[in-house]
Amino acid sequence: MQADSPSRLTAADVVRLAGGRLVGAAEVAVTGVAPLDRAGPGDLSFVASSRYLSHLERSRAAVVLCTPEFASAPGPETRIVVDDPYAALLVVVPVLYPAAPRDAGVHPTAIIGPGTRWDGAVSIGAYTVIGRDVQLGRDVVIGSGCVIGDGVEIGDGSVLYPQVVCYPGAIVGARVILHAGVRLASDGFGYVPGASGQEHRKIPHVGRCHVGDDVEVGANTTIDRGSVDDTVIGNGTKIDNLVQIGHNVRIGARCIIMAQVGISGSTIVEDECIIAGQAGLAGHFTVGRGARIAAQSGVDRHVPPGTTVFGYPARERREYLRTLAAMNRLARIAGQLEHLVEQHGQDTR
Amino acid sequence: MQADSPSRLTAADVVRLAGGRLVGAAEVAVTGVAPLDRAGPGDLSFVASSRYLSHLERSRAAVVLCTPEFASAPGPETRIVVDDPYAALLVVVPVLYPAAPRDAGVHPTAIIGPGTRWDGAVSIGAYTVIGRDVQLGRDVVIGSGCVIGDGVEIGDGSVLYPQVVCYPGAIVGARVILHAGVRLASDGFGYVPGASGQEHRKIPHVGRCHVGDDVEVGANTTIDRGSVDDTVIGNGTKIDNLVQIGHNVRIGARCIIMAQVGISGSTIVEDECIIAGQAGLAGHFTVGRGARIAAQSGVDRHVPPGTTVFGYPARERREYLRTLAAMNRLARIAGQLEHLVEQHGQDTR
Amino acid sequence: MQADSPSRLTAADVVRLAGGRLVGAAEVAVTGVAPLDRAGPGDLSFVASSRYLSHLERSRAAVVLCTPEFASAPGPETRIVVDDPYAALLVVVPVLYPAAPRDAGVHPTAIIGPGTRWDGAVSIGAYTVIGRDVQLGRDVVIGSGCVIGDGVEIGDGSVLYPQVVCYPGAIVGARVILHAGVRLASDGFGYVPGASGQEHRKIPHVGRCHVGDDVEVGANTTIDRGSVDDTVIGNGTKIDNLVQIGHNVRIGARCIIMAQVGISGSTIVEDECIIAGQAGLAGHFTVGRGARIAAQSGVDRHVPPGTTVFGYPARERREYLRTLAAMNRLARIAGQLEHLVEQHGQDTR
Repeated sequence: MQADSPSRLTAADVVRLAGGRLVGAAEVAVTGVAPLDRAGPGDLSFVASSRYLSHLERSRAAVVLCTPEFASAPGPETRIVVDDPYAALLVVVPVLYPAAPRDAGVHPTAIIGPGTRWDGAVSIGAYTVIGRDVQLGRDVVIGSGCVIGDGVEIGDGSVLYPQVVCYPGAIVGARVILHAGVRLASDGFGYVPGASGQEHRKIPHVGRCHVGDDVEVGANTTIDRGSVDDTVIGNGTKIDNLVQIGHNVRIGARCIIMAQVGISGSTIVEDECIIAGQAGLAGHFTVGRGARIAAQSGVDRHVPPGTTVFGYPARERREYLRTLAAMNRLARIAGQLEHLVEQHGQDTR
Repeated sequence: MQADSPSRLTAADVVRLAGGRLVGAAEVAVTGVAPLDRAGPGDLSFVASSRYLSHLERSRAAVVLCTPEFASAPGPETRIVVDDPYAALLVVVPVLYPAAPRDAGVHPTAIIGPGTRWDGAVSIGAYTVIGRDVQLGRDVVIGSGCVIGDGVEIGDGSVLYPQVVCYPGAIVGARVILHAGVRLASDGFGYVPGASGQEHRKIPHVGRCHVGDDVEVGANTTIDRGSVDDTVIGNGTKIDNLVQIGHNVRIGARCIIMAQVGISGSTIVEDECIIAGQAGLAGHFTVGRGARIAAQSGVDRHVPPGTTVFGYPARERREYLRTLAAMNRLARIAGQLEHLVEQHGQDTR
Repeated sequence: MQADSPSRLTAADVVRLAGGRLVGAAEVAVTGVAPLDRAGPGDLSFVASSRYLSHLERSRAAVVLCTPEFASAPGPETRIVVDDPYAALLVVVPVLYPAAPRDAGVHPTAIIGPGTRWDGAVSIGAYTVIGRDVQLGRDVVIGSGCVIGDGVEIGDGSVLYPQVVCYPGAIVGARVILHAGVRLASDGFGYVPGASGQEHRKIPHVGRCHVGDDVEVGANTTIDRGSVDDTVIGNGTKIDNLVQIGHNVRIGARCIIMAQVGISGSTIVEDECIIAGQAGLAGHFTVGRGARIAAQSGVDRHVPPGTTVFGYPARERREYLRTLAAMNRLARIAGQLEHLVEQHGQDTR
C-alpha cells in the first residue's frame, strides 16, 4: 500500500535512481507521476510510443522520461533519456510514493488465541481475530478486521489487507499478498448427490489450502481447501480479483490468472500458464506448462503445453479463428448454398 | 435500507401521495406492498398488464393501483386508477416502509485516526476503523465493520453498508451507496512479466479511484485504483454485485453495469452505456456513448456510439444474429453440401 | 469446520464405523486421510478405479479402503473391502477429523441489539454486530465479524462463518451454512431509467430474502432481497462461491448451483436443477424441474423440465452439439462451397 503523501525528487535525483541522460535543468522537482495529458507542473511523466507525441507536445509535466528517439520531440524541456521508461518508473515510483509506515505491533483490540506465536516484529490490525496455534513469520502484516482460523500458518513478510478470512487448513508462504476480502480454505463444493427428493449429503473437507511464496491474490477471490487432497497455488503465481479456485486444484509456479476466472475442482495448471479474464476450466484435466487460455474461454479437456486456446468449447487458437472466419464467409452465401442444394442436392447424411 | 416495520396508509392517503382516482372505500388501510398473487388483506398491490388479470381477479389485496383500462376488471373493490402504477409505487413505498432510523454519531468502538474530520452529523458503526486524514462530508453513514484507509474522501450524504473496504486512494463523491463487501482502490493487476523461470515484478499502484456523485456499487464488487493514472466512475452510474473494474478504467456518467461484468485495465466506457451481466471488456479501447453490450458478450475492440453488440467476439447485434441464423440453416443441410462438394467441388482456397 | 488435530482410529475401528471386510492387521492405526500417492504411513487411503492401481502399488498408506475387485491387487497389506469406498469415507472422515469445539456462548465483544433473542445455546463470535429484534434458533453459530441487520431470523442449527452480512429482510432456515463473505438481502439492482441526461431513480427494495432449510451458500456469494416480492432459495439447495442471485428470483429445492453463476431478477428455477459454473440466466422465465444448464451457458428463455441446455444462446444439448459439429465440417470445405456458388449460384435470398 503506497502512502498518499509522495516525497519530492529533482530531475538529478531521478537520474541517480534510474540512470539515463539528463536534458535540461537538473534542479526541476517532481512530487508525483502522471500520464502526459494529465500531468501538472509538479509531475514526472513518460513517453515510449509515437502515438503519444501530440500529448507530449501539450504536456505540462515538469520532467519526462523518454526513449532516445523522442529526446528532442516538441514538449516539456526537462527530459531524462532512458532505454525503457517503464523500467525507470518501476524504480522511481516507490521512492516518490514511499509505503505508508505500518503501525508496528499488535493493536490492543486484536484477539489472539492460545498457542499462537510469531518470530520478530509483526503488525496486527484493529479488531482482527486470530485463533489457536497460529504461526506467523517475521514481519507479517495483518490488516484490520481479519479472521485467521486455528492452526493457520503465514510465512515471513506476507501482507494481509483488511477483512481477509483464512479458514483452518490455510498454509500461506512468504512474501504473499492477500487483498481485502480474500477467503482462503473455505469448504469445497462437494456433495454426494441425493436421488430425486433426497437431500444432497455434504462431503467433509479436511485437505489443506497451500499458497506458495510470492503469490498475490486479488480482492474478494475465493480459494477452497481440498476435500481429502490439498489445493495448491505455486510460488510466484499472481491471481486477480473475484477469481474462484475449487477444491484439490493444483496451480504451478508463476502463472497469471486474471479477474473472474473460475477453476473447477481437481484441475491441474502447470507452471507459467496465463489464463485471461472470465475463462472457466472444468475439472479433472491438465493445462500444460506455458499454455495460454483466452478471455471467456471454456476449457473442458487437456491443453497441451505451450498452446493457446480460445472459445467455448476451447480449441487451439488458429483452428478456432479459422472456423470462425469460415463461418462468417459461409453466412454471407447461405441463401445461395440453400438454392444450390434445392437444385442439385439430396440429403446424404 | 428500509425498516422492517412499515407504517399504515389508507387508500385516501395513497391518493394524496401518488395522485389518481379512487374507486371504492377511502378508509381501507394497507401496511405493506405485495404482488397480486401474494398480497394479503393488509397489502397494496398493482396491475399494469392484461397478463395478470387472472391474478387480479383472485387477489386478496386491500387496495390495487391500476391503469384506467383495468379500473373495472374483476378483483378487489378498492382501486386507485393512475397512469403509471410503477411510478405511483415509487412514491408510496418509501412512505409505507420508512428508512430505519440511523444510529446517530460515532459508535464508541469505532477507531478514528488522527487528522480525520467531518462536517455536521455523521453516523459511524461499531468496529469500523478509519485511518489518518480521512475527510467525511455531511450526513455520511458508515456501517459496522468498515475499514477506511488513510486520506480517503467521502462526499455528503454517502452511505457505506457494513464491511466496505476503501484503500488509500479512494475518492468517493456525494450521495454514493456502497454495498456490503465493496473493495475500492485495491491494487490493480499489473506486473512486469518475468522471462521463463523468473519472477513477475509487481507494478506499484499510486493512481486514485474516483467514484462520482450518485453512484451505487453492488455487494462484493471490486474497483481497482489506477497504476499511474486514475480509475474513474462517472456521476450517476449504477454498478451491480460482483463486478470487477480494473486499473485506469474510465466509465462515464449514468451507465448501467450489471452483475459479474468484468472491465479490464484502461478501457474507456462513455456516458449512458448499458453493459449486461457477465459481459467482459478486454482493455485499451473505447465503448462509445450510449452503446449496449449484451449479456456474456466478450468485447475486444472499439464499440461505436449507440450500437448494440453481442456474442464472443462481440459484433454488431444484427450482424451477429444474421450469422447465427445462417449457421443454423446451413447446419441443417450440411450433409447435402458435403455431397455437392464431393460431386462437383475442388478445393479452391 | 473440521479441527486440525485429527483423532486416531485402528483398522478395526474403521470397520466398526463403515462396515466391510478387514484384510490384514486389525490394530494398524491411522490419524488422517490422503489420496494414494500422497498418503504416509499414518494415513487411510482409498481406491475405486483401476486407473489408480499403479498408485496403489506404490502407496505408503497404512490402510486402504477398496472395492472387492481390488482386494488383492498389489499395494499396502491392510485393506478394508467395501462396496463403496466414498460412502465409507463419508462415515469415517468426521470421526477422524472431529469438528473443532465451538466457543460456547456470546463473546464479550459481540454487540447485541435490543429485542434480539434466542432459544437455548448459541455461539456468537468476537466483534459480531447484531441489530434489533433478531431471532436466533437453537444452537446457531455465528462466526467472528458478522453483521446481522434488524429483524433478521436464523433457524436452528445454522452456521454463519466469519464476515457474513445479513441485511434486514433476510430470513434464514434451519441447518443452513453461510460461508465467509456471503451477503444476504442486499438491495436488488433496480432503477427507473432516466432519459438521456437524466438520473436513474432507485427502486426501493422492501421484499425479503428467504433461504430455506439445509441450504449451503459459498464464500462471497450475493443474494439480493426482493423489490416488492421476495427472493426465495428452496430447501436443500447448494450454492457455490461467488454466485449472484438477483431480486425476486425463486429457486426450488435441492438445486446445485456452481461457482460464479449469475441469475437475473425474477427468474424461476424449479426443484432439482443443476446449473454449472459461470452460466448466466437472464430474467423473467422458468427453468423446469430437473433441467441441467451446462457451464458458461447463457439462457434467455424457458427451459423445459428435464432437458439439458448448452451454449450461448443456450439450446437443447443435442441440437447444440449437432450444429457445432456441422459448423466444423462446413468450415473445412468453405473454400469449395464458395467456388461452387461462384460457378453455379446466384443470390436467392
